[in-house]
Amino acid sequence: MLKRCKFIVHYVSKFNVFEQVRYASQILPQFSAEKYNVKRKNFSNVQAADVSYFQSILGNDRVLTDRDEVLPFNIDWIRNCRGQSQVVLKPKTTQEVSEILAYCNKKRLAVCPQGGNTGLVGGSVPVYDEIVINLMLMDKIITLDEISGALVCEAGCVLENLDNYVRGHNLIMPLDLGAKGSCQIGGNVSTNAGGLRLLRYGNLHGSVLGLEAVKADGTVIDCLRSLKKDNTGYHLKHLFIGSEGTLGIVTKVAIHCPVLPKAATLGFFGIKNFENILELYKSAKSSLGEILSAFEMADNLAITQTVKNLNLPNPISDYPFYALVETHGSNEVHDGEKLSNFLNKEMESGLIMDGTVTSDPAKMQTIWNLRESIAASSLVGGYVFKYDVSIPQKHYYDIVPMLKQRLGDKASAVFGYGHIGDGNIHINISVPQYTKEVVSLIEPFIFEEVSKLKGSISAEHGIGFRKPQFIHYSKEPSALGLMRDLKQLMDPNGILNPYKVLPETN
Amino acid sequence: MLKRCKFIVHYVSKFNVFEQVRYASQILPQFSAEKYNVKRKNFSNVQAADVSYFQSILGNDRVLTDRDEVLPFNIDWIRNCRGQSQVVLKPKTTQEVSEILAYCNKKRLAVCPQGGNTGLVGGSVPVYDEIVINLMLMDKIITLDEISGALVCEAGCVLENLDNYVRGHNLIMPLDLGAKGSCQIGGNVSTNAGGLRLLRYGNLHGSVLGLEAVKADGTVIDCLRSLKKDNTGYHLKHLFIGSEGTLGIVTKVAIHCPVLPKAATLGFFGIKNFENILELYKSAKSSLGEILSAFEMADNLAITQTVKNLNLPNPISDYPFYALVETHGSNEVHDGEKLSNFLNKEMESGLIMDGTVTSDPAKMQTIWNLRESIAASSLVGGYVFKYDVSIPQKHYYDIVPMLKQRLGDKASAVFGYGHIGDGNIHINISVPQYTKEVVSLIEPFIFEEVSKLKGSISAEHGIGFRKPQFIHYSKEPSALGLMRDLKQLMDPNGILNPYKVLPETN
Repeated sequence: MLKRCKFIVHYVSKFNVFEQVRYASQILPQFSAEKYNVKRKNFSNVQAADVSYFQSILGNDRVLTDRDEVLPFNIDWIRNCRGQSQVVLKPKTTQEVSEILAYCNKKRLAVCPQGGNTGLVGGSVPVYDEIVINLMLMDKIITLDEISGALVCEAGCVLENLDNYVRGHNLIMPLDLGAKGSCQIGGNVSTNAGGLRLLRYGNLHGSVLGLEAVKADGTVIDCLRSLKKDNTGYHLKHLFIGSEGTLGIVTKVAIHCPVLPKAATLGFFGIKNFENILELYKSAKSSLGEILSAFEMADNLAITQTVKNLNLPNPISDYPFYALVETHGSNEVHDGEKLSNFLNKEMESGLIMDGTVTSDPAKMQTIWNLRESIAASSLVGGYVFKYDVSIPQKHYYDIVPMLKQRLGDKASAVFGYGHIGDGNIHINISVPQYTKEVVSLIEPFIFEEVSKLKGSISAEHGIGFRKPQFIHYSKEPSALGLMRDLKQLMDPNGILNPYKVLPETN
Repeated sequence: MLKRCKFIVHYVSKFNVFEQVRYASQILPQFSAEKYNVKRKNFSNVQAADVSYFQSILGNDRVLTDRDEVLPFNIDWIRNCRGQSQVVLKPKTTQEVSEILAYCNKKRLAVCPQGGNTGLVGGSVPVYDEIVINLMLMDKIITLDEISGALVCEAGCVLENLDNYVRGHNLIMPLDLGAKGSCQIGGNVSTNAGGLRLLRYGNLHGSVLGLEAVKADGTVIDCLRSLKKDNTGYHLKHLFIGSEGTLGIVTKVAIHCPVLPKAATLGFFGIKNFENILELYKSAKSSLGEILSAFEMADNLAITQTVKNLNLPNPISDYPFYALVETHGSNEVHDGEKLSNFLNKEMESGLIMDGTVTSDPAKMQTIWNLRESIAASSLVGGYVFKYDVSIPQKHYYDIVPMLKQRLGDKASAVFGYGHIGDGNIHINISVPQYTKEVVSLIEPFIFEEVSKLKGSISAEHGIGFRKPQFIHYSKEPSALGLMRDLKQLMDPNGILNPYKVLPETN
């Protein structure tokens, strides 16, 4: 079943499948404030005069107040959280963002910064009536330096559009994720998005060359240098990378784009057990070396449920585990040779039970589509708890059988999949319906176990609205104290994305 | 003259040549406070009771007060700066660092954190009588995870020792610099050191997985996770990466080590002009792709002066420019083929006039030694002004002829060399002696020109003591304001490395 074709891959959006699922159920979710019993903080209420002021800056078209128009901005992608905002603002310039924030800060009006609203921890939608500041209209590409690979653009640019643009200049974006067709680079930066290429191209703290952000009081912090090396004082941009819009709103980004690989190949393999997945990863690191660009795993249920729920093809038969191994390189012949050697060796050793290898863009697309649809497939029917944790690799999969045993028949499905190269596993737990009993079985159990294994309770999704009460499993009290100090320093009125990231002090 | 041998390279220390030069002149440098007309800040003076307190924590052996013993800790590597400290402390544990800082903070005693003291901007030595806290005894390796490549160690570990250690486990350190035989990982992290491998393995903001640091008040901030992905709240470690010991003292580091390349090759080429260097870089990026690990350049004078002053061999003849191209890969045959194709193409095109290519560790060592000795060679005789700037690549070399013209016969030598892949050029200006007239010709002219070209006035050396007054050429007022706010938040008494990084407010 092993085969290989000869083309350079061009990814296309895999987000359409998410959209299908997203709108499959149109029953409105419960308000987050009620569902999670949150007390409104002491912010001002939006008045007609405030709306008039926003209209004076943005014009009427870019200030949404109609209930139906505002609704989608209140609901998160997995339809778990629902805010009660009555106003959505769509600035087109940094200056407008600055004026909006200066005003809101003065008036003690809370705001919720929003990009593509594809987050999974409720960070991108309001909880109460925070004013939504959506960056979608700040979508201009500013410059691209083809020699250095430095792209400078506005925060509202959709990741996939950027990727398509830089591909035209022989470059690629250093990050790729399932939501690429909707997520925005400003949101990616604000949440320190990880995704599928991290193993090869590193994280955003390494790739972001510079940025511009607006502080709560409207001050524009201009760190928009596009140099690879700049050691002039504190590295302020990192304050905004991954702080989920609670310290400022990212308005422009300079990012390093690697060279577009001339050759790409994808293998999809059936594996006997998790131990063999780990052995295969070690072998791939050694045999494929610098061309290894992704090493993903999924257990049997993750794949079979996706195949069934979304009616997608599985290119190989049924196996206990699956591994997806991708290479990006500059020489098709060399890459093919490396991959063949790896395959021959590991078919012979038995680590790979069966598999398919392809360089045909359409076939690669089919395999990636299967992998990237796992997240969405679990949204079909019932309620799904989604966890995203990092665990040192040797204990990577331990938590899945542990949860299966604990939940027994209370869960209709428990499965795991993720980026094994980064120690990052996504765990989905499907239940017939959301009940407090099930919640209490899962949480804080899962976080306690991850903490015992020296893992992170949020590998790439962030803390957002859903996890502040669990942050102490991954952050020491002194670090939490410093986080609070930073928040107080940069947003003393707490208007930026309240109820998120920082736990309440009781 | 093209030749190739077949071995895996193992770097050895190139720092011995620095040491030779360093001690060539034993005349004591002028006190920094006098030379640069600095006013002492309102800190307490160290009393006998303070020394007794430090002895009670560290014992007598680890509290140096003898003038001769303290002297080397007061003078920087290029013998440009000299402090007046009377006490050097050598803690062995984080707890000791914490106790020392808590005490100094309470007593308003200023401190100067110090690693290997190899910095080039006077950041690692005191200006007045700051107490030196040297981390050299915190040199333990804590853990190494061979699957993930995560190394956890104390801050005082010497970079070269770490590199040797992880090579024993089939890994390498993600950074390499000329001072590797003396510099410490804590100092590397605190100064966000760049160096020779940045092109391939990225910067420390990307490679550092976690760290532990002590704030001015003695609070230990524990962010020592060793996971590749951890999105649990603010990414605090970045506050300490590159803030040059002014926000806290780094005590432990977790860092990602890439796989040791199975094959390494080095080419050293003669090039006609700078335009061709740039063309060659573009060609190397395309032909060598993922195996390109370093692309360095030096002009004629940089090489000929080093050859002459240090009596080193130049493996090729005299050319206007030189390029050093290194590959790191997992397959010797493939890498050799890629490099051969690149060479054949560019010898034919004329971009490469002549050159040598080798995989023999000893021969690679000779070439790297020549490249890495440039910095030290210029210290022989007279006085040398050293600048380290980033400039977008197309204008990378512009500044050198500009300075030559401006200085005329007032300079005995002006030359440039550096990491072209990172847009980072080092400029050395040798003069018979340091005079205010020469200074006024160079500064702020060089910074103004770099700023006009949208460069950074300090690419990798940092701001330290020597550049705060020029930081505004690279940092906007709002960013400088945020820097001051952070300093005030984290070190309200300003005891940590005073007179450094932040410009004085007048």
